[in-house]
Amino acid sequence: MSKGLPKRSENYSEWYNELVKRADLAENSAVRGCMVIKPYGFAIWEKMQRALDDMFKATGHQNAYFPLFVPKSFLEKEEEHAEGFAKECAVVTHYRLKSNPDGKGLVVDENARLEEELIVRPTSETVIWNTYRNWIQSYRDLPILINQWCNVVRWEMRTRLFLRTAEFLWQEGHTAHATREEAIEETARMLGVYATFAEDWMALPVLQGAKTPNERFAGAEDTLCIEAMMQDGKALQAGTSHFLGQNFARSFDVQFTSREGKLEYAWATSWGLSTRMMGALVMAHSDDNGLVLPPKLAPIQVVVVPIFKTEEELAKISEKMVPVIDQLRAAGVSVKFDDDDNQRSGWKFAEYELKGVPVRLAIGMRDVESGTVEIARRDTLSKESKPLEGAAAHITELLDEIQANIYKRALDFRESNTFVVDTWEDFKTQIENGGFIVAHWDGTSETEEAIKAETKATIRCIPFNSVEQAGNCVFSGKPSSKRVIFARAY
Amino acid sequence: MSKGLPKRSENYSEWYNELVKRADLAENSAVRGCMVIKPYGFAIWEKMQRALDDMFKATGHQNAYFPLFVPKSFLEKEEEHAEGFAKECAVVTHYRLKSNPDGKGLVVDENARLEEELIVRPTSETVIWNTYRNWIQSYRDLPILINQWCNVVRWEMRTRLFLRTAEFLWQEGHTAHATREEAIEETARMLGVYATFAEDWMALPVLQGAKTPNERFAGAEDTLCIEAMMQDGKALQAGTSHFLGQNFARSFDVQFTSREGKLEYAWATSWGLSTRMMGALVMAHSDDNGLVLPPKLAPIQVVVVPIFKTEEELAKISEKMVPVIDQLRAAGVSVKFDDDDNQRSGWKFAEYELKGVPVRLAIGMRDVESGTVEIARRDTLSKESKPLEGAAAHITELLDEIQANIYKRALDFRESNTFVVDTWEDFKTQIENGGFIVAHWDGTSETEEAIKAETKATIRCIPFNSVEQAGNCVFSGKPSSKRVIFARAY
Repeated sequence: MSKGLPKRSENYSEWYNELVKRADLAENSAVRGCMVIKPYGFAIWEKMQRALDDMFKATGHQNAYFPLFVPKSFLEKEEEHAEGFAKECAVVTHYRLKSNPDGKGLVVDENARLEEELIVRPTSETVIWNTYRNWIQSYRDLPILINQWCNVVRWEMRTRLFLRTAEFLWQEGHTAHATREEAIEETARMLGVYATFAEDWMALPVLQGAKTPNERFAGAEDTLCIEAMMQDGKALQAGTSHFLGQNFARSFDVQFTSREGKLEYAWATSWGLSTRMMGALVMAHSDDNGLVLPPKLAPIQVVVVPIFKTEEELAKISEKMVPVIDQLRAAGVSVKFDDDDNQRSGWKFAEYELKGVPVRLAIGMRDVESGTVEIARRDTLSKESKPLEGAAAHITELLDEIQANIYKRALDFRESNTFVVDTWEDFKTQIENGGFIVAHWDGTSETEEAIKAETKATIRCIPFNSVEQAGNCVFSGKPSSKRVIFARAY
Repeated sequence: MSKGLPKRSENYSEWYNELVKRADLAENSAVRGCMVIKPYGFAIWEKMQRALDDMFKATGHQNAYFPLFVPKSFLEKEEEHAEGFAKECAVVTHYRLKSNPDGKGLVVDENARLEEELIVRPTSETVIWNTYRNWIQSYRDLPILINQWCNVVRWEMRTRLFLRTAEFLWQEGHTAHATREEAIEETARMLGVYATFAEDWMALPVLQGAKTPNERFAGAEDTLCIEAMMQDGKALQAGTSHFLGQNFARSFDVQFTSREGKLEYAWATSWGLSTRMMGALVMAHSDDNGLVLPPKLAPIQVVVVPIFKTEEELAKISEKMVPVIDQLRAAGVSVKFDDDDNQRSGWKFAEYELKGVPVRLAIGMRDVESGTVEIARRDTLSKESKPLEGAAAHITELLDEIQANIYKRALDFRESNTFVVDTWEDFKTQIENGGFIVAHWDGTSETEEAIKAETKATIRCIPFNSVEQAGNCVFSGKPSSKRVIFARAY
């Protein structure tokens, strides 16, 4: 169980890999770079999906579904986009296997070669904009506000569970608008939805800002992002929202008649958030004992472990606990009552710690006599004895408190690991210790690339809340008007 | 809008194709055989998913996610399974494109050829059982009750929206059990879930039964199915549940230590239901005016069309309708208030008929004065005027009544198009008129194939409720102990 989980301080990377596997979140599959998301991990992803989907619908979006395959010619149409994705894509060339004429097994049937190769979608801008051409004739057809939940494939060479996998699950929003302003507004709105989701649901504080041109999505005019800090001080890009201008409308000839009767190209946005967020969730909050899950995303929010020797004892404990459990469930709390007698309670305690269950209740015969229950918090690992009377209300409040505490802990961590740096010497020293560096940058790609080459740090974002301030680029010494965020990143 | 929709009696097939497109359910994509599921169609599918997913969870199943790709060697392991799927699969052979050295665009990079080809999953038994090998060591690890929602690809040569597409969405359940009996019980349980879903949610009466060996899933020992009748008298297989025996456990070496300490192969089931059901929903209930949706699956259950000339009139109508709408929403009814003044109410009436909205409320100034509202049912196309007072309660009941009526109508249709047939002459005559034929069959594949060759009718199922009865095969005259269901099918 948690015995033998590597310590974060000793090997953060191993700790993560082991924790994802031992907590039953995911495992590597036999297919290179593809993962199996196990039921416990998938239950968390389902909660994420539900929360996001509700927010998408509340902001006027509808779900739809577009094909898995992208014809090669579609990918070619938007040049930057093609360049960005061509090098890492799964290519379907044939549509049939046949029995091996020279022996056992199956071989590709060369008579079933596709006239045009199909790419397994790495993202769906091309397929969707090719479809939108038929949907958009007039300004009255706009806006189109669509999202899809699906799988995508990017043939990454080095993969890690959740963080970087050849196949991953995500949602991708694709909207079309009559004006530039409306599309820019949508881009910002959806970044806001992601930030709210990260902070309110994942308990993950995020910086909001824009990417530098170097780091933009292939085909975008502007890429907004939310960036989070992991416990090793590295950054993780947690969601992106792109203003695509008229690039895809031009590539796929999507024109509409405006209110003024003119023919114009539609304006586009796209925005995505993936199972990568599962990795962020683990890396941001968990500890050497296992997962620490924010209550709002925990599949099991409260586990009850009865401590008993006989069936009679179990019956007495159940009698006391059932009303509490009923009250919790009535309040919408998911509760597991674990009366499995094949495992000792010590084993169970360790198991639920590993799985990150926010609140654990333990109750034995002494508690039954005194009318109390032991309440343990996963986030602080603290315990207290409380009267059964009123326990449900207390636990409901406690779940909110844990949610807030996990967020605050992550925010404190980020703040104490964010450094304002003004000299190149300080930059080089600081980046070795991890964290976010807030420094002036001269705005050129050359400087950005030189800094990356020397320190592996990238500009995570030009934060929205950055104030105008005259200064000098930390690398080149050239004038700069605002500070940006540098970090090493996942 | 609905103007020009072909009539069912004239061209049922064209009626279906046109209706699916005009009602905004789905359309063909630029990728051969793949469809775009449009927001309105997807909203229905989401309701189906939610209903099924709740039932899966209520019967102890959990969701998970397995890779999109199946290594070719996996497909080869179970012979019948391989034979069943090899001829219609999308094969990934390369993982990179490159710029065309001889000109424009992208070409497959021959240096990026996969060592082993990957098949885009046509179904996931192989990938999942390869994973289960590591999950199952002891009887204590069983049962495993897992479902996944995903896309699959079968390279069909002739495709039709929803009914037969190269890519489709579905759920596939894959369970592992310690005993044969338990697996058989699970197979039946999940067929029962499908039947309940079809009847209670889709208002679609289904026959439950077993497939003949010829029609079994490739790799199954037994395939159970639900079969529904469409309005042209053809059958549509609406969901299947397979008892896989130990076939996949043997192919992938999944053994466990039993309670008695013996090493045994695990027992398997799999069961799936797909977006094909969207086609069944359309074909079973809809009419020449458009969709007829069962209220439980309708994205919009009630539409309110105010009939007004001025803003003042609209305000007066709204004042009257808001309390009714609020009461309906409080009762969980989805209501759309369509005050768009760009369209005439006649156009709206036709549009909502086309879209299958179960209840339409129309209210004009005369209704405001008399305190009434016109309530139109989509299923019967009947209208009545009702007092606003108590309207919400009446409509809520009406939705239940419509759900029941649609089911009953489909059941009556099936019953009046089900024929007990005893001679081959009658069989040949009857099959031309459509419907289900209940006839004796000698139990041989030869007879089954001969009947299919001569009449295009297949054995849809050996119904569970078929009684033992001595008779003679309708084709061969050989002895038979029970009647089976023949039909032409989608």
